[in-house]
Amino acid sequence: MVQYLQIASRARTELIDITAQVGELVRKSGVSSGVCHLFSLHSTGAITINEGADPAVRSVISRFLSSLVPVDGPFSHGEGNSDAHVKTSLVGPSETVIIEGGRILLGTWQAIFFCEFDGPRTRKVAVRISADD
Amino acid sequence: MVQYLQIASRARTELIDITAQVGELVRKSGVSSGVCHLFSLHSTGAITINEGADPAVRSVISRFLSSLVPVDGPFSHGEGNSDAHVKTSLVGPSETVIIEGGRILLGTWQAIFFCEFDGPRTRKVAVRISADD
Amino acid sequence: MVQYLQIASRARTELIDITAQVGELVRKSGVSSGVCHLFSLHSTGAITINEGADPAVRSVISRFLSSLVPVDGPFSHGEGNSDAHVKTSLVGPSETVIIEGGRILLGTWQAIFFCEFDGPRTRKVAVRISADD
Repeated sequence: MVQYLQIASRARTELIDITAQVGELVRKSGVSSGVCHLFSLHSTGAITINEGADPAVRSVISRFLSSLVPVDGPFSHGEGNSDAHVKTSLVGPSETVIIEGGRILLGTWQAIFFCEFDGPRTRKVAVRISADD
Repeated sequence: MVQYLQIASRARTELIDITAQVGELVRKSGVSSGVCHLFSLHSTGAITINEGADPAVRSVISRFLSSLVPVDGPFSHGEGNSDAHVKTSLVGPSETVIIEGGRILLGTWQAIFFCEFDGPRTRKVAVRISADD
Repeated sequence: MVQYLQIASRARTELIDITAQVGELVRKSGVSSGVCHLFSLHSTGAITINEGADPAVRSVISRFLSSLVPVDGPFSHGEGNSDAHVKTSLVGPSETVIIEGGRILLGTWQAIFFCEFDGPRTRKVAVRISADD
């Protein structure tokens, strides 16, 4: 069964920690061992996993991408968000996390982020939890 | 069961929309709920998901990567395609898409692309469809 | 069931071929058809799949990333490894490979690499093998 996370971004470029929401869906599913697929349904938003403890890390990633792919670069896509499409393909729209002991298996410092590249907007991430075979 | 998509690229760098072929394999599989793993069997070709409606988007991504990783950069790999290997690791060789209601679950503007970085060539993408548990 | 690969890196930035270890876990699992999820439990290390035959390729990727994201860039994360976090989100922390005929399905030249971006350290990669439905 597919469920959806609703995410309200507040800036044009922003990494939003969605670990707690994903963890809550996994807990409610009752699945103790399996995998959880996360899929951003947008072409200007991505999903990544990186350090969640120090907020400076998400800011570093966001600012690095903004400087690597400038919003006013020599792009031809007419909507003015070409940079957001490029960033989405660099980071990628999905992640698969392992479920073990009823919880998402993450390293000590890892958190799951939705990467907003063309906000502020309301976004949807599809979540599919598969139980063990 | 693994199936294969054959893809004939026509340029050195090119994003090729394979959404229809993937959708057809999913339809024929009869799987209504599950996931579909896509895996490029090449080290100079990747898979991404981005906007399919405006062809300018795939061109923007392709041209950005070409300027970020120039073909004549200071690389030591002797085959002259070092840039293609780098681009492949930046974009990634695989994607996992969710199947729901017998169809691939994609956002309104999303399409699945094979990214050719060292064409023209004939390429193979492995497709594995897993039914719901 | 989740298993873990232990990886000892010896340089700050390094791509380490883990194909044989992953293949051995798949072989021991006895699974003939399925998928294998690989997940780096670190926010300064990633997983990629690229050419394994010519060692120059992994060196090209490593050196390109080091020049793209310099260690002494204008970053604010206090631990001095901001570049490693950025590289991790560009390459991605996980891969899913298909198992077919009891073996990992890879292209002729493909190998699986753990990407160390803040070594030398001892690292852990979670491996979850799912049998066919």
